[in-house]
Amino acid sequence: MKRPYEKEGTDRLNRKRFAVILVRPESPENIGLAARAMRNTGFEEMRLVGLKALDPEATRTAIHSRSILDRARFFPTLAEAVADRHLVLASTARFRKTFTVLPLEESVRTVLAFPRIARVGLVFGSERTGLSSEELGAANFVFYIPQASTQPSYNLASAVLLTLFALFSRSAGEIVARESLPIPRKEQEDCLRLIIRKLERKDFIHPGNRIHVTEMVQDLFGRLALTEKDRRFLLALLDKATD
Amino acid sequence: MKRPYEKEGTDRLNRKRFAVILVRPESPENIGLAARAMRNTGFEEMRLVGLKALDPEATRTAIHSRSILDRARFFPTLAEAVADRHLVLASTARFRKTFTVLPLEESVRTVLAFPRIARVGLVFGSERTGLSSEELGAANFVFYIPQASTQPSYNLASAVLLTLFALFSRSAGEIVARESLPIPRKEQEDCLRLIIRKLERKDFIHPGNRIHVTEMVQDLFGRLALTEKDRRFLLALLDKATD
Repeated sequence: MKRPYEKEGTDRLNRKRFAVILVRPESPENIGLAARAMRNTGFEEMRLVGLKALDPEATRTAIHSRSILDRARFFPTLAEAVADRHLVLASTARFRKTFTVLPLEESVRTVLAFPRIARVGLVFGSERTGLSSEELGAANFVFYIPQASTQPSYNLASAVLLTLFALFSRSAGEIVARESLPIPRKEQEDCLRLIIRKLERKDFIHPGNRIHVTEMVQDLFGRLALTEKDRRFLLALLDKATD
Repeated sequence: MKRPYEKEGTDRLNRKRFAVILVRPESPENIGLAARAMRNTGFEEMRLVGLKALDPEATRTAIHSRSILDRARFFPTLAEAVADRHLVLASTARFRKTFTVLPLEESVRTVLAFPRIARVGLVFGSERTGLSSEELGAANFVFYIPQASTQPSYNLASAVLLTLFALFSRSAGEIVARESLPIPRKEQEDCLRLIIRKLERKDFIHPGNRIHVTEMVQDLFGRLALTEKDRRFLLALLDKATD
């Protein structure tokens, strides 16, 4: 059965203007997982700094996301990789004396405050060394992802995923939260009345408990926000039970 | 330099009551990455269904999170793994005819609405097959993680990470968003006035542009929310520039 995913033409964030920039990534697995995270959240452009080519191992983890790797662009330096960007955000797991560091949530709000045509670079450093101070200096904003403990920092692909998901979920207004439509409230209430009548006929309801049982029925079946399928099933069940 | 992580005693969610339950996971790498995601977000208890022991490969990706693997508990069936839970949420990437499926955000709100002592099981199926309908039937709520495209679904460790991060970031109120404290507004304004005086002395400001330049200075340096360090640096810089 289909699941709800973003409908065509609902990309309010204009994700094509984003580039995910990985600086000297050491693990091909992480590059592949970053590509998969991009596909999951609808981002397309990957840039790689300090690599000349991709290790074939990267394709193992890039399930259904090979095309992102195929179109990845290679840059010798971070300065070249961000040259065409209007706005550059760099991720850090370690605080520096010099740079003001925003938490992920605030960095997302920062991005969303700029015009939806601004070209944005999201920069992530290597697994082992992160970004150098010089590389942080190439960014307009430096951000971190909150965590519970000092160690370990988020895995590289995890940092990419959390960042892209935070952007995606704030811009994907067209994903319907629930698949199923409740029946109109009048029909829900008709159904509740029918249930109560069935319970009366079986003497489950009597003057001493009428109000209490009625309220229990309203609460229990109200919370279900009954669909057509629920109603049919529930009434059939009660007919059987009160036979 | 230290980075902001959650302070001791600020776990409003009481994360010790959560168990992350992986059902027939196939990739030891994913088990290790799930443990790392748990450590990053402060969750501790892992349960494994349908495995008898851990592949040593799992420890490779469980950086600084080995203790979570060491304490992982093994269960032959999901029913046994959730028996002591008050509330069970199961993740799915595929919709089923029978089960109502909540998006991640709503499932987090659902969890937060229960008393903070309710023991919760978060259930994730195998990479290849997900959870069976029988296994979904062991849950109070089934949830999915929104995505941009139909394919691929989120990687198993990614699904664990996004779920735990959503819970963590809604409960971790004690992580300070910014490290640096701006100087009091009066001192910020004194600093702006000093800057303006320096610019006047250099005839950068004249009657024709006074209002405009003053407003530019207010806007530019106001947005910076100057810290003590910023102020010292900025004034030294201006002294030099207007020498």
